[in-house]
Amino acid sequence: MPGPLSGTLVLDLTHVLAGPFASMTLADLGARVIKVERPGQGDDTRAFPPFKGGKSAYFATINHGKESIALDLKAPEDRAIFERLLARADILLENYRPGVMERLGYGWEALHARFPKLIYGAVSGFGHTGPEAQRPAYDMVVQARGGVMSITGERDREPVRVGASIGDIVAGMYLVQGVMAALLQVERGGTGQKVDVAMLDSQLALLEHAIAITSVTGEPPRPSGARHPSITPFETFHAEDGLFVIAAGNDGLFARLCDALELPLAEDPRFATNPARCQNARLLKRLIEAVTLDRPKAHWIETLTRAGVPTGPIQNVAEVLQDPQIRARNMVVDVLGPDGAPAYTAAGNPIKMSDLPDPTTRAPAPDLDADRAAILDWLDEGAAD
Amino acid sequence: MPGPLSGTLVLDLTHVLAGPFASMTLADLGARVIKVERPGQGDDTRAFPPFKGGKSAYFATINHGKESIALDLKAPEDRAIFERLLARADILLENYRPGVMERLGYGWEALHARFPKLIYGAVSGFGHTGPEAQRPAYDMVVQARGGVMSITGERDREPVRVGASIGDIVAGMYLVQGVMAALLQVERGGTGQKVDVAMLDSQLALLEHAIAITSVTGEPPRPSGARHPSITPFETFHAEDGLFVIAAGNDGLFARLCDALELPLAEDPRFATNPARCQNARLLKRLIEAVTLDRPKAHWIETLTRAGVPTGPIQNVAEVLQDPQIRARNMVVDVLGPDGAPAYTAAGNPIKMSDLPDPTTRAPAPDLDADRAAILDWLDEGAAD
Repeated sequence: MPGPLSGTLVLDLTHVLAGPFASMTLADLGARVIKVERPGQGDDTRAFPPFKGGKSAYFATINHGKESIALDLKAPEDRAIFERLLARADILLENYRPGVMERLGYGWEALHARFPKLIYGAVSGFGHTGPEAQRPAYDMVVQARGGVMSITGERDREPVRVGASIGDIVAGMYLVQGVMAALLQVERGGTGQKVDVAMLDSQLALLEHAIAITSVTGEPPRPSGARHPSITPFETFHAEDGLFVIAAGNDGLFARLCDALELPLAEDPRFATNPARCQNARLLKRLIEAVTLDRPKAHWIETLTRAGVPTGPIQNVAEVLQDPQIRARNMVVDVLGPDGAPAYTAAGNPIKMSDLPDPTTRAPAPDLDADRAAILDWLDEGAAD
Repeated sequence: MPGPLSGTLVLDLTHVLAGPFASMTLADLGARVIKVERPGQGDDTRAFPPFKGGKSAYFATINHGKESIALDLKAPEDRAIFERLLARADILLENYRPGVMERLGYGWEALHARFPKLIYGAVSGFGHTGPEAQRPAYDMVVQARGGVMSITGERDREPVRVGASIGDIVAGMYLVQGVMAALLQVERGGTGQKVDVAMLDSQLALLEHAIAITSVTGEPPRPSGARHPSITPFETFHAEDGLFVIAAGNDGLFARLCDALELPLAEDPRFATNPARCQNARLLKRLIEAVTLDRPKAHWIETLTRAGVPTGPIQNVAEVLQDPQIRARNMVVDVLGPDGAPAYTAAGNPIKMSDLPDPTTRAPAPDLDADRAAILDWLDEGAAD
C-alpha cells in the first residue's frame, strides 16, 4: 500500500501477538512485511480459534497484507536466503527470548557489524536486560505483575484481567514507535539501532495516575469498579433498561448535567466541586439514578448529548462493529480471502493521515510459505541489478 | 535530550492526557516540546490531584521536560508569537473539538498552505470525520462505547472500567506513530500531513481477538473475570496466602505445570489439549488449587519459574514501583523539582534504544508560562540569522 513507509522492508520473525501487531501497523503505513515462519507449523496463531473456512480468523485479523516464507534458521540453505533478505531489509523484528538470536548467529552485535543500517526491533516479556530477562511471559503475567490488574475490577472483590490483551498490544505499539524513530535516524544519515521493548515495561506507561497517587500518598490505589477513581460523576448509571455512562469531568459539565436531569444540585455544597462530589459519590449516584431509572438509556444519551454532557452506551463487540461513527471512520475492515472476496473482519487503522489511503479492505493473510517463490525471484532480480 | 528526534520542534496545544502523553513520548525520544497553554489556568491537569508541594504530581508525571508559554490565541500579539513558532515547528499537536482550530484561523488547510512541511497532529474523542465528530468524549465514554468494558469484569456481574486510562493513552500512542510516520515522509522530501486520531477508533485496535470471535460466531464475547477467554490455564489461582497467576499457553507448558504440581493430568483426555482444558476449566482450576492452596504464592512462583512455566504475582502499584526487574530497566524515574532535587515519581520510557540515553531522572515539568522569555529570545535569535 502507498504510505509513509512505502519502500521500507520489514523482515518479521515474530509470532503470536505483540510483534505481529507491530508489523501490522507498519504494513498499514505502507511497509512491505515479509513474515519469516518456522517450517511445518508457522506462527502459533495459525492454530488459534476461531476458524473460518478451516483457517484461523485470529491469524487473519493480525497478519493481513503480509508475505510469508518458511525458513529453518538452523539449515544452511535457508540461512543463506535469510541473509540475502537481511541485506535488503530496513527493519528486523523478533520476539524470541533474549539469547536465541545470538545462538543462531544473528544477535544484534553480529548483525550490526554486517548490516550497519539495519534496525533491530525486539519485543520480549521482561526485556533484554535486568535480572529476569530470561523469564518467559504472557499477557496475563505482565498485566498481573505490572499493576493494571490491581486497579481493575470491583472494590473488595478479586482483581480481573483487562479483557483485551493490552500486555501484548501496548508493547507492540511501543515497538512501532521505537523502530520508526530509528528509521528517522537512519534517514538522517545515522546507523541502525537496537530497539528493546519489554511487555512488563510497557504496562508501567499505562499507570500515570496510579503512579502519581502511590508516590505522593504512599497508598496504592485499589480497583474502583466502573468509576474513575478521582473524578465524579464519571461512571456507569442505571437507566430503565440497563447501564449507560456519564462522564462529567468538570464543574461546568456537572452543572449542565444537573440542568438536563432537573436535579438542583449544582450549587449544593455537597456537590459543587469535584472533591466534594468524590466525597459524596454514593449519594450522588443514588440521586442521579433516582431520575435516570425512569426512562430508557437511549433517552438519556440523547438528552445529555444535546446538553453537551459526555455520555454514551456500553456496547458489546457486535454493537461496536455496527456503530455508525466507527464504520464512518473505516474502523471495521474486510480481510479478503484468496479468491478476493471478503472473508474475515478486522479492526481498521486508527492512524488517519491526509496522504494515506484508508481502504475498507485488506489483502489476504498469507498461507504458510505462500510467497517463497516470489520472494526468491525478487532476490534474484536484485542480485542482477 | 539527545535522541532520534533531536532537532525536532513540537508545538503542543494539547491538554489533559491523550495529547500530552504523546508529546511526552516525543520528548523522551529527543524532541523539544513547547507547551502552548491558555493564560490564567493553563492545562486543566495543573489542578488535578494528587498535589505535592502545592503542585500537581499528575501534571508533573506527564509534562516533565517540556517548556511552557501561555498564549491567548485570540489576542493579536500572542497570535504573532504563535505564528513565529509555527514557522519554526516541525509538528503541531492539538486536541480541541473539530472546528476550533479553523475558527482561530489555524485549521489544517490554512496552515498547510502557509507551512507546507508542518505536520498537524490532532487527537479527539470521535475523530474529525463521521456523523458524531462534534461530540465531546472522555476516556470512560470511549472505553464503554468502544467495547473494552463489555469484555472486562466478572461474568454475570456489571462491566468494569479498565483501571488505567487506556481510552486516552492508546490514542496518544497512535498519535505518536502517525506524526513520526509523517516526519519520515517530510525527511524523504514530502510535505507535511494532517494526522487525525480518534480515541474511539483506537479502542477498536485493542479488540483483535474479540472481533475475530464476534465476526465468526456472531456472538460477542462476555467478560471472563481473571481468565483468558480461550486459553486454559491462563488465570489467577489461590495459594495459601493469596492470588497469583499461571499462564500455561500451550500443551508443552501445561505438561511442565502438571509435573511441577505433581498432578498427573497432562495425558488425561479431559485436559490433554487446550480445547479440552477450556471445556473443563472449572474442574481444572479446582484440581490445581487443591495443590496450590497448601503453600504460599512465593513458593509456587519460584517452583513454576524453575520449571519454565510463565507465572507471577499480582502486584499493586506500590509493589510495582519496587520491582527489581522494573527498576533495573529504569522504568521508575524521578521528575526533578525546580531546585534540581527529585520531586515526583513517573514511569520511564519503555522504548529502549541502543543509541538513546535512558536516564533515571527527568527535567522538571514547567510552571505555566515559565519559558516565555527564553522562547522569545530564541525566536529573536532565529530572526537575526
